[in-house]
Amino acid sequence: MNSDRLQVLLSAVARGDTSVEDAVEDLRRLPFRDLGFAKLDTHRALRTGHPEVVFGAGKEPGQLAEIVAGLAESSTPVLVTRLSREGREHLACTFPEAHFDDEAGAMALGESPPPSGCVAVLCAGTSDIRVAAEAAFTATTLGSEVVRHWDVGVAGLQRLLAVREELDSARAIVVVAGMDGALPSVVGGLVRVPVIAVPTSVGYGASYGGLAALLAMLNSCAPGVSVVNIDNGFGAGYLAHVINAGAGT
Amino acid sequence: MNSDRLQVLLSAVARGDTSVEDAVEDLRRLPFRDLGFAKLDTHRALRTGHPEVVFGAGKEPGQLAEIVAGLAESSTPVLVTRLSREGREHLACTFPEAHFDDEAGAMALGESPPPSGCVAVLCAGTSDIRVAAEAAFTATTLGSEVVRHWDVGVAGLQRLLAVREELDSARAIVVVAGMDGALPSVVGGLVRVPVIAVPTSVGYGASYGGLAALLAMLNSCAPGVSVVNIDNGFGAGYLAHVINAGAGT
Amino acid sequence: MNSDRLQVLLSAVARGDTSVEDAVEDLRRLPFRDLGFAKLDTHRALRTGHPEVVFGAGKEPGQLAEIVAGLAESSTPVLVTRLSREGREHLACTFPEAHFDDEAGAMALGESPPPSGCVAVLCAGTSDIRVAAEAAFTATTLGSEVVRHWDVGVAGLQRLLAVREELDSARAIVVVAGMDGALPSVVGGLVRVPVIAVPTSVGYGASYGGLAALLAMLNSCAPGVSVVNIDNGFGAGYLAHVINAGAGT
Amino acid sequence: MNSDRLQVLLSAVARGDTSVEDAVEDLRRLPFRDLGFAKLDTHRALRTGHPEVVFGAGKEPGQLAEIVAGLAESSTPVLVTRLSREGREHLACTFPEAHFDDEAGAMALGESPPPSGCVAVLCAGTSDIRVAAEAAFTATTLGSEVVRHWDVGVAGLQRLLAVREELDSARAIVVVAGMDGALPSVVGGLVRVPVIAVPTSVGYGASYGGLAALLAMLNSCAPGVSVVNIDNGFGAGYLAHVINAGAGT
Amino acid sequence: MNSDRLQVLLSAVARGDTSVEDAVEDLRRLPFRDLGFAKLDTHRALRTGHPEVVFGAGKEPGQLAEIVAGLAESSTPVLVTRLSREGREHLACTFPEAHFDDEAGAMALGESPPPSGCVAVLCAGTSDIRVAAEAAFTATTLGSEVVRHWDVGVAGLQRLLAVREELDSARAIVVVAGMDGALPSVVGGLVRVPVIAVPTSVGYGASYGGLAALLAMLNSCAPGVSVVNIDNGFGAGYLAHVINAGAGT
Amino acid sequence: MNSDRLQVLLSAVARGDTSVEDAVEDLRRLPFRDLGFAKLDTHRALRTGHPEVVFGAGKEPGQLAEIVAGLAESSTPVLVTRLSREGREHLACTFPEAHFDDEAGAMALGESPPPSGCVAVLCAGTSDIRVAAEAAFTATTLGSEVVRHWDVGVAGLQRLLAVREELDSARAIVVVAGMDGALPSVVGGLVRVPVIAVPTSVGYGASYGGLAALLAMLNSCAPGVSVVNIDNGFGAGYLAHVINAGAGT
Amino acid sequence: MNSDRLQVLLSAVARGDTSVEDAVEDLRRLPFRDLGFAKLDTHRALRTGHPEVVFGAGKEPGQLAEIVAGLAESSTPVLVTRLSREGREHLACTFPEAHFDDEAGAMALGESPPPSGCVAVLCAGTSDIRVAAEAAFTATTLGSEVVRHWDVGVAGLQRLLAVREELDSARAIVVVAGMDGALPSVVGGLVRVPVIAVPTSVGYGASYGGLAALLAMLNSCAPGVSVVNIDNGFGAGYLAHVINAGAGT
Amino acid sequence: MNSDRLQVLLSAVARGDTSVEDAVEDLRRLPFRDLGFAKLDTHRALRTGHPEVVFGAGKEPGQLAEIVAGLAESSTPVLVTRLSREGREHLACTFPEAHFDDEAGAMALGESPPPSGCVAVLCAGTSDIRVAAEAAFTATTLGSEVVRHWDVGVAGLQRLLAVREELDSARAIVVVAGMDGALPSVVGGLVRVPVIAVPTSVGYGASYGGLAALLAMLNSCAPGVSVVNIDNGFGAGYLAHVINAGAGT
Repeated sequence: MNSDRLQVLLSAVARGDTSVEDAVEDLRRLPFRDLGFAKLDTHRALRTGHPEVVFGAGKEPGQLAEIVAGLAESSTPVLVTRLSREGREHLACTFPEAHFDDEAGAMALGESPPPSGCVAVLCAGTSDIRVAAEAAFTATTLGSEVVRHWDVGVAGLQRLLAVREELDSARAIVVVAGMDGALPSVVGGLVRVPVIAVPTSVGYGASYGGLAALLAMLNSCAPGVSVVNIDNGFGAGYLAHVINAGAGT
Repeated sequence: MNSDRLQVLLSAVARGDTSVEDAVEDLRRLPFRDLGFAKLDTHRALRTGHPEVVFGAGKEPGQLAEIVAGLAESSTPVLVTRLSREGREHLACTFPEAHFDDEAGAMALGESPPPSGCVAVLCAGTSDIRVAAEAAFTATTLGSEVVRHWDVGVAGLQRLLAVREELDSARAIVVVAGMDGALPSVVGGLVRVPVIAVPTSVGYGASYGGLAALLAMLNSCAPGVSVVNIDNGFGAGYLAHVINAGAGT
Repeated sequence: MNSDRLQVLLSAVARGDTSVEDAVEDLRRLPFRDLGFAKLDTHRALRTGHPEVVFGAGKEPGQLAEIVAGLAESSTPVLVTRLSREGREHLACTFPEAHFDDEAGAMALGESPPPSGCVAVLCAGTSDIRVAAEAAFTATTLGSEVVRHWDVGVAGLQRLLAVREELDSARAIVVVAGMDGALPSVVGGLVRVPVIAVPTSVGYGASYGGLAALLAMLNSCAPGVSVVNIDNGFGAGYLAHVINAGAGT
Repeated sequence: MNSDRLQVLLSAVARGDTSVEDAVEDLRRLPFRDLGFAKLDTHRALRTGHPEVVFGAGKEPGQLAEIVAGLAESSTPVLVTRLSREGREHLACTFPEAHFDDEAGAMALGESPPPSGCVAVLCAGTSDIRVAAEAAFTATTLGSEVVRHWDVGVAGLQRLLAVREELDSARAIVVVAGMDGALPSVVGGLVRVPVIAVPTSVGYGASYGGLAALLAMLNSCAPGVSVVNIDNGFGAGYLAHVINAGAGT
Repeated sequence: MNSDRLQVLLSAVARGDTSVEDAVEDLRRLPFRDLGFAKLDTHRALRTGHPEVVFGAGKEPGQLAEIVAGLAESSTPVLVTRLSREGREHLACTFPEAHFDDEAGAMALGESPPPSGCVAVLCAGTSDIRVAAEAAFTATTLGSEVVRHWDVGVAGLQRLLAVREELDSARAIVVVAGMDGALPSVVGGLVRVPVIAVPTSVGYGASYGGLAALLAMLNSCAPGVSVVNIDNGFGAGYLAHVINAGAGT
Repeated sequence: MNSDRLQVLLSAVARGDTSVEDAVEDLRRLPFRDLGFAKLDTHRALRTGHPEVVFGAGKEPGQLAEIVAGLAESSTPVLVTRLSREGREHLACTFPEAHFDDEAGAMALGESPPPSGCVAVLCAGTSDIRVAAEAAFTATTLGSEVVRHWDVGVAGLQRLLAVREELDSARAIVVVAGMDGALPSVVGGLVRVPVIAVPTSVGYGASYGGLAALLAMLNSCAPGVSVVNIDNGFGAGYLAHVINAGAGT
Repeated sequence: MNSDRLQVLLSAVARGDTSVEDAVEDLRRLPFRDLGFAKLDTHRALRTGHPEVVFGAGKEPGQLAEIVAGLAESSTPVLVTRLSREGREHLACTFPEAHFDDEAGAMALGESPPPSGCVAVLCAGTSDIRVAAEAAFTATTLGSEVVRHWDVGVAGLQRLLAVREELDSARAIVVVAGMDGALPSVVGGLVRVPVIAVPTSVGYGASYGGLAALLAMLNSCAPGVSVVNIDNGFGAGYLAHVINAGAGT
Repeated sequence: MNSDRLQVLLSAVARGDTSVEDAVEDLRRLPFRDLGFAKLDTHRALRTGHPEVVFGAGKEPGQLAEIVAGLAESSTPVLVTRLSREGREHLACTFPEAHFDDEAGAMALGESPPPSGCVAVLCAGTSDIRVAAEAAFTATTLGSEVVRHWDVGVAGLQRLLAVREELDSARAIVVVAGMDGALPSVVGGLVRVPVIAVPTSVGYGASYGGLAALLAMLNSCAPGVSVVNIDNGFGAGYLAHVINAGAGT
């Protein structure tokens, strides 16, 4: 409900084309779509420039399909993350044209915008790939070109240094790491673009499900690093795309 | 030590202009400046495009002045944050031309680049101003135009909604909040640009020195939000400028 | 064992209608019903004006039925929450006249008082519905009229603002949210009645099973907000009814 | 900005009494008072029925006086809590007519409404009195009659049982306790009105600054109990008054 | 290896009845029984006056039987706690004369000493019975008379007060409670004997698997209360017996 | 208010010697002494056999003196712990006959019972002496004979083994340790009497103010060990005396 | 990429045997082997003197085999830890010549160096054996002689003292313990060689999955003790071997 | 009390040169020196090969001097760490020949052994120097040659790579870092000798006094890394020397 629409509406009231009662009602009925158990924020694309994304974990397959269908009427692509096996199967039947990335555990329905501008996604170890793939798939779906560098953790520094110059061509870098969470600090000291650090729950014992990596990343001694929630590959990919898209303006 | 310099060096070796021993030495002696108690990363501006910043807390006034002088020889502006009263006084004597922002507790030495592109800095309550001012001063010093909105917390939502449209003109938004840390979630749902959330240690009891706000921000239900360390106004301002600078390209 | 009963008893002693020994015994034998493995607090309705409620989790189906039957002799309605599938089936056979709410995972046996006064129950996301439904069912069973608003989280603020005026007609508002727990702060800033915040364990990573939401709610910057345990929909619905019932006096 | 005002405004637009531009402006300019460093939510009394309260901790005496004066223009009473010695002295000079409660560390400016309906405030030990006094002063200032019972902790149960019947005449009960935080559970099992539990930071060692009491209260086995932040006497007194005021309707 | 045995040994050396080499060997070979995967502390009964007890959780049924048989050769009764279903079945076959308490999940092999002196075991709710039963069975097996009071939590105080005088006849009282862990504080204020508090993992949400109860008990405002590990019914029953046995001397 | 007094009172009512109104009043007025800011539990000695003890920390010197005087009227000895320098000086003036132990930071007023039965108090390091001295002074004041062994930590095991046999003559052993909290496990494996473990806040870094020692003690692999709050020397000494006194019966 | 190789390369450039372009490429292509999903650090043996080890948990059997095969081409032995049942079976088929230690859950492929120098591995209880066996197998595979002492916890101190002199012949001692984690402190006070403490997740309740033991070990009052992650038997065995190997030089 | 002494003693008993009573006494009187408030473990040098070290924090200057004098009689050098200003001044007067290192806050009395073998000490930032200096001074005092590299944190990786080859000549490396604690992981991946990681309390906000660094180090993805307590420079220096001394054998 932005100023332009407000001007139009109020002008219509001033002209008598719209009654006061209708205008009151219209001003109150803000745009979302009510499914009963969910209120789809179809207005989000208008408001933020990016579509609402469906967090698939814990939702019934039937609910998921209903939500996806509802969103797809307003805008595409529709992105669904954290798909369970059941959710994936049900959606694959309902939307045969959808694109699934099983490494990322995610689905995209509808065309992505043509890619423009590059985002890099790095992960420290092979167990972090699932989260990194979610970030990469998200950014790709939203319209970014994505470069992947898997298994470049700091215990074998030469692997990171080998790809260092490729990093400089990205407009944002997602760095995924569990255990000691040291990789973002090292990357942040090497590059000139924003680094989005994603701690993962990979590890055992005193990793405390990603807490060790999360704290390390929040305390990164390299500036230009910010952090998202543990295992939140989606959030990092989304933000990387937003930065990339802004840089493309 | 980038590819270009490597090409130049190796070409010199190939031509015989540089001996093998000298080249080995040169390749090993990477550019930093050793003060004994500190190794100034004067190479950072070259490497990341942004200058090293001095964290003033816990450093002796004399050390501070020495570090600032050392950095200023390589590049300006030099930014110092978390100045104690003693540090501020000593630096004011040593560098009479420096610019001090006492609300932010920070100092800048040397000219900032001409401002280009806008960053918004918001804070939830009046006690959060100190951290927000650090973010604003940092971004300003590095070369961003900054718009400030103080005391727009969610318990009086109309204060935020009143400035909402101004937010859309920023290329990055820093949102500073203590206590329940709810403001970034609300802002993140309204805007289309990256939101950098800064939890503050403002609060008491179960705020646990900013932990409550930090966790709330990491769990923000609005995408496009990332988080920096508690009270890390500098980091947020730095990152906002990096995003802004990238968007200006 | 209140003053009136004490007066009656002592007067009987004074008149000789009751022997000293009997009075001693009577004063010691306070009213509860001993099932061996449980001591039913049948006195609670008398003492607090509200019946004892059965927490179904972890109780054997047979024990549950025995407890329900024991309580139903003293007063109704009897409310059972956190029913397992087995518990639900066993109780459905034993008490065919009972009312089950499967979304809430709860059962009510016996007539509720006629509804009087309105309680509102809100939840932030669809995954919070289970807890919100428990709160709504509890308040309904105890005798409150309940209005439900599902999926009105702060990331799409227009959904909440759309129902804002309905909130003012409630005498107490239950606000259920996981993840960042931001909704109660926003609601608390909009309304004039008590807000009971319920953190849920919905989320992942640094939500720590609801801790993030719990801390955010305890630190709410809006006054008039209090908090119950994580996922404690029952407690919130109970308290909302108690406030509503008091307001109806 | 409620429906009525909207109707009036839009009718004026329809009649041509108000231009579209003015209406746009008016709809955007929501009521708060901007002091630069603070945005006073003068609209709160209208919106929530209760005035904004000033949290005194960490505010400069001069700022405090400016905020109090600003609020007092809109509505009274103005309540200030957590006064430092300096703040108290400065305010006492500026507002000689104000009322100070030094046990509570708080100030009230302007007449309270005539008291109506009773709130009880209990505390477990003598060290909890400071917090309990803040609760009592808050509720009194807002217009509740308050009954105080100090030092009635569960280790000497007869002290609580001695005042038990007085509790039943209250419409809400604030229970303040540190250390093991056991008192609200016992009180909650005895009374029929809402119990607002306030953990305090009183204790040592594994009390962890009130965490032990906070967790105990959140896990209270008595229904009808909700919890506010550690040491938040103000919040509890405010909520107790809101419940009391609602019950008086 | 006490002073008496040392005297005997050294006298034998002095008399030449024992060679120096044998004495060296004997002094080094302290009494335990080595099964390879376990070193049975058969010396414990001699050293501490109480037999070693077998913690059954996580041990293979065959290992358990081997350990039990090894201990039974040195002294009886042998007590095994935390029996899995498999462990229980295997032991029941191997030791048909053993006594099993399925509520406690424990087994005793061999005669207990004749009971002497009384220990009371209380629990707050029906879900705490498992832990309380382990405490009661342990104390019984070691030779204490045990009185049980189940479901006497503080939310219905009359249930505890009804058994109060029976408590005074015990020489030690075990109090088992989960959730808010308030019962030991109340009991500790009523009795003159040691209270051993056992937090249980009963609860949900912010009970944090018994942490809330543990902290509450450690902060008990009643003196004479000490605490054992969460769910450690065995440890409490053992200690209660040790106190009881000491009092019987 | 025990059965005997109840019999007497009710008999008086039956005989008409006491009116019903007086009996109602008498039954309600349970024995404590109300100072306004404190309700002295003068009934405790009667109820628990041990006097109330005054926790001196955070109390005003004047309040302390008033409380001590109030308690001394009912029973002696009166014990005050955690005395500040100011509190100590004020009490020394007010009660010149009192006995002060400055190592323990405590005071005793009035004669202790003649010592009977022995309690041992051990501490691991010299920094733990303050807490151990509080335990020792408490037990001595209440009437136990106390043996002290300072600085017998496990890193130099021969120091503990040197006093081992003396430990067997005690009826209860208090073991005070900070840092790794290992001493109670070792002592618990050597002796036959109850071990009361007291974690201290001695340590730094990951000792977390005694948390490391507390957790270690709660997880002691030796049975017969229970734990009190961090730095709670008083509680341990009190409990040791209670056990000792019970053993002397 | 050490100095020697750099000299060789640059000399080749100087002689014209290597073109500048090839040298640039070569300097960038550091030695690791890229499998797509993993980058094998085959350079590690060269760099650190010890082979890369494969952490088996969470890796697909097929991936595991591919990684093992890839590493085995560069150097042997290859060590795999934390094998699942599926992983073990698949590797046993693929590498029939490999050696499996099922107690340790690990596999070794290829010859170990001849053992030289002794490492001791101790564990406190039988439930700690799994972790201790991993440490022992790791050190053995890398080329250390290993002595094992199982079940020598501090609650039966004579079991440790019985093996004390054997400890002095080791060059490094791994001490594995859960629950109270007290064993390393006692061992550290007895020996002259480095003690590597391994907390295990053995325990329940307030052991918090090994946190209690971890904290106790970090606070060990005996110097010469360092700590690795919870359950990290591999890391301790590796480090013990590194120390042993260094001592053998 | 080793086997040799035992043989000698028992032979004397066998010959009648020593009476049984004297032998009993001798066997019981193990070697430590009792100062009343402290039991000096003068036996440690014999037992572990390294002298006892005095932790200066929290000890009275007079006590410190007494302890130092007591230890100096048995063996030198005597090392005192964590000296307060008062402690330092008192010791400087008492022991004018002692050597003080004010950066490390430590003192050494008596000759160190001639240095043999090299230990490297690194720190990440200038604020970590205090802890690193304590490690370096400790190792030096005990007899190791020490190389220092200050301010080589990972955000400017070239500073570390510049000293990399010097690291290979050390027999043990101490790595000191606060904030994100990433340095030990990077160093551990580069070297072949044991790395002892020391987290420091340097940082703010979510560094939680060194917890972030501690957890990161415990989760280091490079093997060969172990960890000591936060700020425990002494412990790391001691252990590095023990490893170095062992390697020199």
